[in-house]
Amino acid sequence: MTVVPEPPHAMEPQVGDGLPSAQRAIDSETGFDVLPGFRRFRQRDDVFNRARWDPSVRSAKAEAFFASYDESPPRVRHVDGFDQRDFALRNASWHAAETLARVRRAEGRYEGFTHSFTMPPKAPRRAELSDVADATRQVKRAARLLGADLVGICVLDERWVYERTYCRADDTEPGVELPPGATHVVVVATEMDERLTATAPVATSSAATGLGYSRTATAVTSLARFLRELGYEAQACMNDTALSVPLAIQAGLGEYGRLGVLIAQEFGPRVRLGKVFTDLPLIPDRPRRFGVREFCEVCRECVSACPPKCLPDGEPSVGGSGPSHHARVRKWTIDAEACFRFWTDLGTDCAACVRACPWNRTLRSPAGRLWRLLAGSPLRRVALWLHRHRRRGRRRAGRWWWGEEPEWPVPPG
Amino acid sequence: MTVVPEPPHAMEPQVGDGLPSAQRAIDSETGFDVLPGFRRFRQRDDVFNRARWDPSVRSAKAEAFFASYDESPPRVRHVDGFDQRDFALRNASWHAAETLARVRRAEGRYEGFTHSFTMPPKAPRRAELSDVADATRQVKRAARLLGADLVGICVLDERWVYERTYCRADDTEPGVELPPGATHVVVVATEMDERLTATAPVATSSAATGLGYSRTATAVTSLARFLRELGYEAQACMNDTALSVPLAIQAGLGEYGRLGVLIAQEFGPRVRLGKVFTDLPLIPDRPRRFGVREFCEVCRECVSACPPKCLPDGEPSVGGSGPSHHARVRKWTIDAEACFRFWTDLGTDCAACVRACPWNRTLRSPAGRLWRLLAGSPLRRVALWLHRHRRRGRRRAGRWWWGEEPEWPVPPG
Repeated sequence: MTVVPEPPHAMEPQVGDGLPSAQRAIDSETGFDVLPGFRRFRQRDDVFNRARWDPSVRSAKAEAFFASYDESPPRVRHVDGFDQRDFALRNASWHAAETLARVRRAEGRYEGFTHSFTMPPKAPRRAELSDVADATRQVKRAARLLGADLVGICVLDERWVYERTYCRADDTEPGVELPPGATHVVVVATEMDERLTATAPVATSSAATGLGYSRTATAVTSLARFLRELGYEAQACMNDTALSVPLAIQAGLGEYGRLGVLIAQEFGPRVRLGKVFTDLPLIPDRPRRFGVREFCEVCRECVSACPPKCLPDGEPSVGGSGPSHHARVRKWTIDAEACFRFWTDLGTDCAACVRACPWNRTLRSPAGRLWRLLAGSPLRRVALWLHRHRRRGRRRAGRWWWGEEPEWPVPPG
Repeated sequence: MTVVPEPPHAMEPQVGDGLPSAQRAIDSETGFDVLPGFRRFRQRDDVFNRARWDPSVRSAKAEAFFASYDESPPRVRHVDGFDQRDFALRNASWHAAETLARVRRAEGRYEGFTHSFTMPPKAPRRAELSDVADATRQVKRAARLLGADLVGICVLDERWVYERTYCRADDTEPGVELPPGATHVVVVATEMDERLTATAPVATSSAATGLGYSRTATAVTSLARFLRELGYEAQACMNDTALSVPLAIQAGLGEYGRLGVLIAQEFGPRVRLGKVFTDLPLIPDRPRRFGVREFCEVCRECVSACPPKCLPDGEPSVGGSGPSHHARVRKWTIDAEACFRFWTDLGTDCAACVRACPWNRTLRSPAGRLWRLLAGSPLRRVALWLHRHRRRGRRRAGRWWWGEEPEWPVPPG
């Protein structure tokens, strides 16, 4: 493992507007608006890490919030979606991700969240791969078999690698580790359960998040193992090492949405992301634009659905409410502090915006495919009207997921 | 954790034909023919464990076979299905199961294979579950969410719990651990990938086995976590602790087949099994008979497909080729030594019998459902003829899985 040089780190010589030409080229495809003075993100500034060291975020409630994922909450609330069975389901869904994250807990590692996953040594010889197109096809096929619902490839763009990572165990900021010679990133997305998400924001819906993490942890570690057995470097990551959303957009998995996350063409915002850094040469995907930006400009479903009202109502802007934001990128930025404060008040993570987003659909149904075509066209207001008219984004009870309420006339799919 | 009493262990007082009445009752439903003098199985007699201590099974080839799952095989064979990419895919598919198995490797535990999975403490208070029917429904719903493709429940029948377990790290036979007061077993099955299995027996098809184990390990540990967060005992197991096949049959997941494994109604023999022992009272499922026994009596597809010819051609019988068999149960019994020797010669696990079995289908397709009705009826010979006529069980190349050979006219599904 090598340590990425400390900032100011080695980027291509800066030209013109301050960005290397390759980065300007990809930004023109993704629509990223990166401003002069840009610096890479420090993982300690993530609001979850700030809850460990920043007195403005840290609180007894935050402590109890984190602890409740390890042991069921001490107090049982007999409230729909917050009963003992709902928290039991939530913690069960996180179990695999948390177990894999803590294999090397004794060394302070929290893998998939602040440290990359520990992997066995790579094979001593490299497989003979006929050409780069063939290698790309095989890697994608393996990724899908190993648990990825979506897979895309981008060239490693160091802007999205953390400037420094953060170790919660000892409150330090180690340098970021990347495999020697890494040039490409395989970005994977796993679908979060649609019916659980429909109950957000309760403990029941958090099970969709946990399952997403568990499935992603398995997918990225297995995929990295595949590449390593082919004799190539491969580092498996979830939230650690780099920002996933810009890499996923560059890898063609979707667009950036008003609610501050990836909107995938297949499942909308209802995905979790992971990535594998490798030195295997691969053909990158092109970023895909399918009308999300234009749709989000006329839609405020997520804004209305957000209980603490922490989503941006206006145009993309520069800056944000605090250090958890990428200061020199013009984009829709959520109020991360208010969002996290709501989670700790609620006692579980919230996904009300994901539930309410009109793009929260699947391509599997013909109706879903038709809607998506409409939403990506100049008739996007009709698509939005249809979404509202059919009340697709409205919340279902936790009991509904447990099968104790009848299905609604409008199916969730 | 308690240690099950050593043999002769406490069973219900023996009556009539030497079996307690509850066991006679369930045997009449499953069709198990358990003879006087029956003893529980010792896990050291499993052929994989014998490869560690029994000179008649142990060999340098067996050592190399096991080692190849940890590190890619030292020699690359440029043979379809055995190339470096095929072994890479195989080892990647095993990665999650093997990682979870070795979380407590320092203590000699190999969880899911010879030791049960280590779980966090259970919640200090028990959830209020309205009634046993409701609890059963909720546990099954949770199990399916958490990765089980099939789930069934049986009352704990101690006959299928190992007499002693086996620790490979120090070649000892510890007592079997069961949760205090365990009364029920939730048995889960996960589907093995259909297209990978179609390439058996090569390294590509072994990826279906590995993925099955990885998915099962996640499913049983997550389900046990769910039960423990509800305040109940729950012990997650795969091959450890007890024989899975008789428990799965008692739990209604399927019937016993000529090839020596479970034939599930949904996927035939193309499943992996896991189980969770719990003290939560649940409603057991009834064993299901849907014509497998009668079908296997007229079918020899597995026998013909088996490369080392180690499957039984005749009627169910008592005894077998060595200590790896349950001596006092009348059943179809494979020659485990010959089977395992073939695996070590091949350099990977074989599933040719699973691939060739006519029950290797899914219920998803209407054609599959129709076939199953026919196979379970007196017209079973017509079903067998159809299977042969359509050449459903024939082997596909590893290249075919990688998308490098055209689809055949007959789809695999």
